[in-house]
Amino acid sequence: MAPLTKLTAPSVDDIRAAAERIASHAVRTPLLESPHLNEMIGGRLLVKAEPLQRTGSFKFRGAFNTLAQLGPEARTGGVLTFSSGNHAQGVAAAAQLLQIPAVILMPEEAPAVKIENTRAYGAEVILYDRLNDDREAMGSALARERGATLVKPYDDPHIISGQGTVGLEIIEQVAALDTAPDAVLVCCGGGGLASGSAIALKDAFPDVRVYAVEPAGFDDTVRSLEAGVRQTNDPAQRTFCDALLTPTPGELTFEINSQLLAGGFAVTDDQVAEAMRLAFSRLKLVVEPGGAVALAAVLSGVYQAAGESVVVVCTGGNVDEEMFARVLSGAAA
Amino acid sequence: MAPLTKLTAPSVDDIRAAAERIASHAVRTPLLESPHLNEMIGGRLLVKAEPLQRTGSFKFRGAFNTLAQLGPEARTGGVLTFSSGNHAQGVAAAAQLLQIPAVILMPEEAPAVKIENTRAYGAEVILYDRLNDDREAMGSALARERGATLVKPYDDPHIISGQGTVGLEIIEQVAALDTAPDAVLVCCGGGGLASGSAIALKDAFPDVRVYAVEPAGFDDTVRSLEAGVRQTNDPAQRTFCDALLTPTPGELTFEINSQLLAGGFAVTDDQVAEAMRLAFSRLKLVVEPGGAVALAAVLSGVYQAAGESVVVVCTGGNVDEEMFARVLSGAAA
Repeated sequence: MAPLTKLTAPSVDDIRAAAERIASHAVRTPLLESPHLNEMIGGRLLVKAEPLQRTGSFKFRGAFNTLAQLGPEARTGGVLTFSSGNHAQGVAAAAQLLQIPAVILMPEEAPAVKIENTRAYGAEVILYDRLNDDREAMGSALARERGATLVKPYDDPHIISGQGTVGLEIIEQVAALDTAPDAVLVCCGGGGLASGSAIALKDAFPDVRVYAVEPAGFDDTVRSLEAGVRQTNDPAQRTFCDALLTPTPGELTFEINSQLLAGGFAVTDDQVAEAMRLAFSRLKLVVEPGGAVALAAVLSGVYQAAGESVVVVCTGGNVDEEMFARVLSGAAA
Repeated sequence: MAPLTKLTAPSVDDIRAAAERIASHAVRTPLLESPHLNEMIGGRLLVKAEPLQRTGSFKFRGAFNTLAQLGPEARTGGVLTFSSGNHAQGVAAAAQLLQIPAVILMPEEAPAVKIENTRAYGAEVILYDRLNDDREAMGSALARERGATLVKPYDDPHIISGQGTVGLEIIEQVAALDTAPDAVLVCCGGGGLASGSAIALKDAFPDVRVYAVEPAGFDDTVRSLEAGVRQTNDPAQRTFCDALLTPTPGELTFEINSQLLAGGFAVTDDQVAEAMRLAFSRLKLVVEPGGAVALAAVLSGVYQAAGESVVVVCTGGNVDEEMFARVLSGAAA
């Protein structure tokens, strides 16, 4: 690969350092496998189960890695972030562990479970209107006002390094299973997990194909990878994948992803709901809509995995009981 | 402890041999933890997640350990068993891996998911009426007729050794967490898992208290432990914990349990449903009713875990989508 031009792009060593930093607090999530799902795809499917991560999503990794590196003065001022819910919980939980005050801006329509949990970790939650408020401007103003440090959800090297520990664990776990993946599919919002994991994975397996998977209508990364420049989503689009509503790829994450990713796929809400049902029945794992898009790409055949060994990252499991019951009942997503 | 009088009771070495036998096919399931649940009980709760086991329950362990020890002649004749569903799937999956024909007697009212999965593993399923048919007589007659070997669901040393690998893994996993459990609570039907796990656990931690947990009305082991002799359940009792409908403790399992267990607890279906909801929201784990009774004992306060380090075994996750959706919706169990 061409050298990454940004000085801020993390290296594999940065990701290894993040792994050490988070080791005592983060869960080393298992790689799950189901003979039924293998048979269904005609290949081998390994599912990295991040719903089992502390706070119910991978976001804790990047958040803790970032907050743990703040100096004493920054810790006193506290941290501030904006998030639809999983990064919010990650930052709130990391802040609680490190005894740092946290303010979180969350969209009003975020799942109740995510808002409640973020408050339960001791953070102050401020709700905003996703379509009419400028969350970045609100965040910057609040950060100035309170002297708080802004913790970006994805476009930051420490966040990317933390999320990259998912890729690092996959490398060690597939080795223990005596296999090497042909492809790794990752759910993609702003691209922090995809970029961090790709840095680790491509270092260990130069030939592995890493793909970003997004909900249909929110396929900004898929289209940006094709176009070679960052694209935005139509604000009128809708999906129940609340974790993946980012308007456009991050600057740094896209620079990394455009060099390391093999491409991307988009899946419909119906394909996602079916993947959630199969994760329930075959893996006994609770996966939220946004956490199931990569699994949906493989199980729906949008990505043809026949004859391959494929790793899918299920990124989170923070879904309301009502929504999950509706999905199980087979109601339209 | 007094020496076990039966020659057939397995030793810790038998359990270690079982662990080696099943290692390449069984999942080493994780020990999950939630800060929220810890706070709720005022102690430390570690959840052994057997829904993530191959076939969705711990039963695969004992089944594979037993079938792997059959000689060539027995393998040709095939195996036969009776089970409400989890042992059925365990035997069917083990038989498929070892290329042994399998016939399984299942009660007509077993969850559809369990009957379908057992058939999907290639086993022949014969349904019986749980209240009016004598499954043991049917099984013996069929075994004679076909020259098949009867694989008992729990009252057998190889089964007990296989299930005991759950206890062995707990020992290693709590050591990695730098803790030692004050108590271990295990869901109990016929007592195979409780007895096997207790043999391993009491060997490593002589002071640990191991408890059997059962559904109210099916608390034969709880009452048998109190009475000192095996008790039976009232056949008119009902529970949605379909995995735990055994009429009385096994002979060998009760002999072991009466020497090693500290006692037992019974929980209501409502307490079980609440535990299933908390496993969903806090652990992102799908747990079936019968697999959640031990968790229910701790989370409901039936077992007071304040100030303790407690391990709970969640034994299975094979629950129909409709039932799980009903439980999530808060409908009465």
